[in-house]
Amino acid sequence: MSFKAAFYQGNRTVTTGACEPVEPGAGQVRIRVSHCGICGTDLHIWHGAMDKRVKMPAVLGHEMSGQIDRLGPGVEGWQAGDPVTVMPLDFGKNPPPGHSHVADFMKFMGIDSPGAFQSYWTVDASTLFRLPQNLSLAHGALVEPLAVACHDVRLGRVQPGEHVVVIGGGPIGMLVAMVAQHAGGKVIVSEVNPFRVAKAAELGLEAVNPVETDLKQLILDRTEGRGADVVFEVSGSRPGAAVMTDLLRIRGRIVIVAVFAFKPEVDLFRFFWRELELCGARVYEAEDYDAAIRIAAEGSLPLDKLITETTDLEGLQAGFEKMDSGGECMKILVDVRA
Amino acid sequence: MSFKAAFYQGNRTVTTGACEPVEPGAGQVRIRVSHCGICGTDLHIWHGAMDKRVKMPAVLGHEMSGQIDRLGPGVEGWQAGDPVTVMPLDFGKNPPPGHSHVADFMKFMGIDSPGAFQSYWTVDASTLFRLPQNLSLAHGALVEPLAVACHDVRLGRVQPGEHVVVIGGGPIGMLVAMVAQHAGGKVIVSEVNPFRVAKAAELGLEAVNPVETDLKQLILDRTEGRGADVVFEVSGSRPGAAVMTDLLRIRGRIVIVAVFAFKPEVDLFRFFWRELELCGARVYEAEDYDAAIRIAAEGSLPLDKLITETTDLEGLQAGFEKMDSGGECMKILVDVRA
Repeated sequence: MSFKAAFYQGNRTVTTGACEPVEPGAGQVRIRVSHCGICGTDLHIWHGAMDKRVKMPAVLGHEMSGQIDRLGPGVEGWQAGDPVTVMPLDFGKNPPPGHSHVADFMKFMGIDSPGAFQSYWTVDASTLFRLPQNLSLAHGALVEPLAVACHDVRLGRVQPGEHVVVIGGGPIGMLVAMVAQHAGGKVIVSEVNPFRVAKAAELGLEAVNPVETDLKQLILDRTEGRGADVVFEVSGSRPGAAVMTDLLRIRGRIVIVAVFAFKPEVDLFRFFWRELELCGARVYEAEDYDAAIRIAAEGSLPLDKLITETTDLEGLQAGFEKMDSGGECMKILVDVRA
Repeated sequence: MSFKAAFYQGNRTVTTGACEPVEPGAGQVRIRVSHCGICGTDLHIWHGAMDKRVKMPAVLGHEMSGQIDRLGPGVEGWQAGDPVTVMPLDFGKNPPPGHSHVADFMKFMGIDSPGAFQSYWTVDASTLFRLPQNLSLAHGALVEPLAVACHDVRLGRVQPGEHVVVIGGGPIGMLVAMVAQHAGGKVIVSEVNPFRVAKAAELGLEAVNPVETDLKQLILDRTEGRGADVVFEVSGSRPGAAVMTDLLRIRGRIVIVAVFAFKPEVDLFRFFWRELELCGARVYEAEDYDAAIRIAAEGSLPLDKLITETTDLEGLQAGFEKMDSGGECMKILVDVRA
């Protein structure tokens, strides 16, 4: 067997080459990587937007699954062959209690240190989450983005029967919509891309194109004029930031999931007038990983339909190019063993 | 005795004239008005900004105190002479349960119907709150704005020892700061007007001029680099909306108290990155009135120093002119019996 990795070289270029597995140190394990998804953040890196932060050639990838290959000294509770995923947050030596997932000192594995687009990944055992035997390793690679969605829905406090709008139907938006629907919410996805609107239907979600449909009127019609209970802003767009406050009932809630690259105008009067709430939601905490694994293992979410393509490490470059073209894709998985 | 009222006539003009007291109907009481404060909303009306909403000649005024003069049929639990204030929210015949204080159907007494700048005010008994005997009627007229502050601090969930910033030191900002400090918060008021900065010191509050002092650095210095726990945005200004997100710790909270007349740019990335929260807060609920009366009656807040002037009904026009000039005033009270 050859040990391979994909290397981000800058200039929108990923190359594939041989690599030497890292021997697990004390408290570490070496994982034989099975699958690793391409995240929007990976694409952002590929675009060159984080070239000051990543150390090239960089092994990216953090949405992964695999099986434990070797244990370093002092690791207990795990054995070779165990199916796992990783929560790729690096808290350093002494994480303080409480919400360290958004602490300034937190490093992100696969960005600030090597990631999972390689045959073997050596990580601290403290980052491991066990995957159930009935969960495929392909779906196991979706646990990380699913945990993002679980975190977002948890902070949005979605209750059964509540009306939920998800603005932006990319992979995270779709997962947020799926988890909100799983929590009992009545969900509408707002998305301008026709491929994504059609994909939403495949996923069992209602989606509308706000260019064609008056989203605010639709929500008012559905709620006897009250407005939606929760809006998830996942588009990071000016129209999204403009409409989010219009859709909500009195004391409705907004969760900012998107990474806004600019400061949009926000209707703060509407927050005052209707006593709206807003919160930001970033990555996840351990309980969100637990929830994501539980929900994925239930088998009720159509995760297969979210995966529009499975490629190999050599196909990663083409995967980035496809995502970049705004093409007809949703989640692209890399089968690292292929 | 003559029965008088002040009438807003449009065109920045208030006149005083005779008026006939309204006989209390079933479920109503007639109050002999003692004091009534001039609110920023009254000034807004005087500016002509709400001429489409108010019915001229309009009797304004909703920050009031007085004593019950007559009971209409069927009113129980009250008697002539009882000192009272009024929660000036008109829910109509059938208020639905829960947060009707921000319901679309809610009317505001003193704006949508006659107010308390008159010798006698006839209101529904359901709007009455009893004032303790040890609370002066001048201070009783401050219960309404104090209830706004209690509502704001309640929604901001200020805990003892928390670092609090109040952006904007007008009457409501000062009351928010006083109530937050009363709740155990470590409060800093940010205010550009030198008169108000000095007034804050009189009120036992720390205030800084953000033009002279680097507010963000000050907060970081006070909090070992973490940031403040709660920010109250009471200025309604672009600089306030810009700085509010910079001041907060991870998972810090913003309360929008100001009435924004425009849609400012807001740093939604910072909400995402630090998982900040924001909520709007408008008027009050009954529990906030209860809290305001309790706190005012305790006597620990320097309410006397908030009142920069007490005038009579004939002085209302001059009061508006003084507030409009941005002059050296804070809360102006009208002694309606004078």
